[in-house]
Amino acid sequence: MSRVYQLIEPGPVVLLTTAHKGRANVMTMSWHMMVDFEPPLIACVVSEANFSFAALRATRECVIAIPARGLAATVVKVGNVSGRKVDKFTTFGLTTVPAARVVPPLVAECFANLECKVSDTRLVRQYNLFILEVLQAWIDPAQKGPKTIHHHGFGTFAVDGQTIKLKSTKP
Amino acid sequence: MSRVYQLIEPGPVVLLTTAHKGRANVMTMSWHMMVDFEPPLIACVVSEANFSFAALRATRECVIAIPARGLAATVVKVGNVSGRKVDKFTTFGLTTVPAARVVPPLVAECFANLECKVSDTRLVRQYNLFILEVLQAWIDPAQKGPKTIHHHGFGTFAVDGQTIKLKSTKP
Repeated sequence: MSRVYQLIEPGPVVLLTTAHKGRANVMTMSWHMMVDFEPPLIACVVSEANFSFAALRATRECVIAIPARGLAATVVKVGNVSGRKVDKFTTFGLTTVPAARVVPPLVAECFANLECKVSDTRLVRQYNLFILEVLQAWIDPAQKGPKTIHHHGFGTFAVDGQTIKLKSTKP
Repeated sequence: MSRVYQLIEPGPVVLLTTAHKGRANVMTMSWHMMVDFEPPLIACVVSEANFSFAALRATRECVIAIPARGLAATVVKVGNVSGRKVDKFTTFGLTTVPAARVVPPLVAECFANLECKVSDTRLVRQYNLFILEVLQAWIDPAQKGPKTIHHHGFGTFAVDGQTIKLKSTKP
């Protein structure tokens, strides 16, 4: 759990799953950041225009799933369609896996999955900004050195390239 | 201003400048995200352990400066030293430029500079989380196609690699 920040701090595009009224949904998200190390707290903005907004507000649970670059085309498709009418998991070939501590599912194809509960809603009304606490974190050991994608707007992404290591005293 | 989100959404490491009691300071920051498009709102977490925290809270002004990969070594040095005792601009060879609408300086070596005011402090006490409004944005046209760096912890960074473009209907 103390290493969760290393997944979110670089700013990858992520998927967010919710479950509401017996149905799971998934959206694409890029507006998120770390807020604390341990327990890991994450802030995110989910527009009230998104179908996921009502689910997140009502159930106070979600999963943040982090896709590697091989899923980029799927990530864009997920982001372009609303879950109001479509089962996006089936339509776009994403496999749901039951989570341990929340109802929303994990996404099997993602290299990391973070089970979260909403822990603060003070800024939801004004900004659609949720504070999440990570309850459980999963890494897929079969996906080694995953490269993530970073959204520059309108479907343009930077893929992780070279890794550089510099001497630092800070986490 | 409507394109500011394209700079922040990918999750680059940034520099944050402040000015307090007649002295400017600069820190390295990776915990930030977009909150709204226009006017651009940005959330960020500045630890109360950082010298910049008191300046940001007291003056309610800052500049977010975005460095390209060539500044990576400088960015790490800025992050490893406190401004309490050191003038980090002079020590690390960063050039300050007066901002138009705030007192904290721009950083000439960065390819983008965002002049910001603090617009919401409701989550400062509990999480050190500030909501900033971007008042003025600057881009250096001489730095073309800048590659940014993304922090994975302890001085390890992913540099932007390949750019991919996929068909998307979303900003």
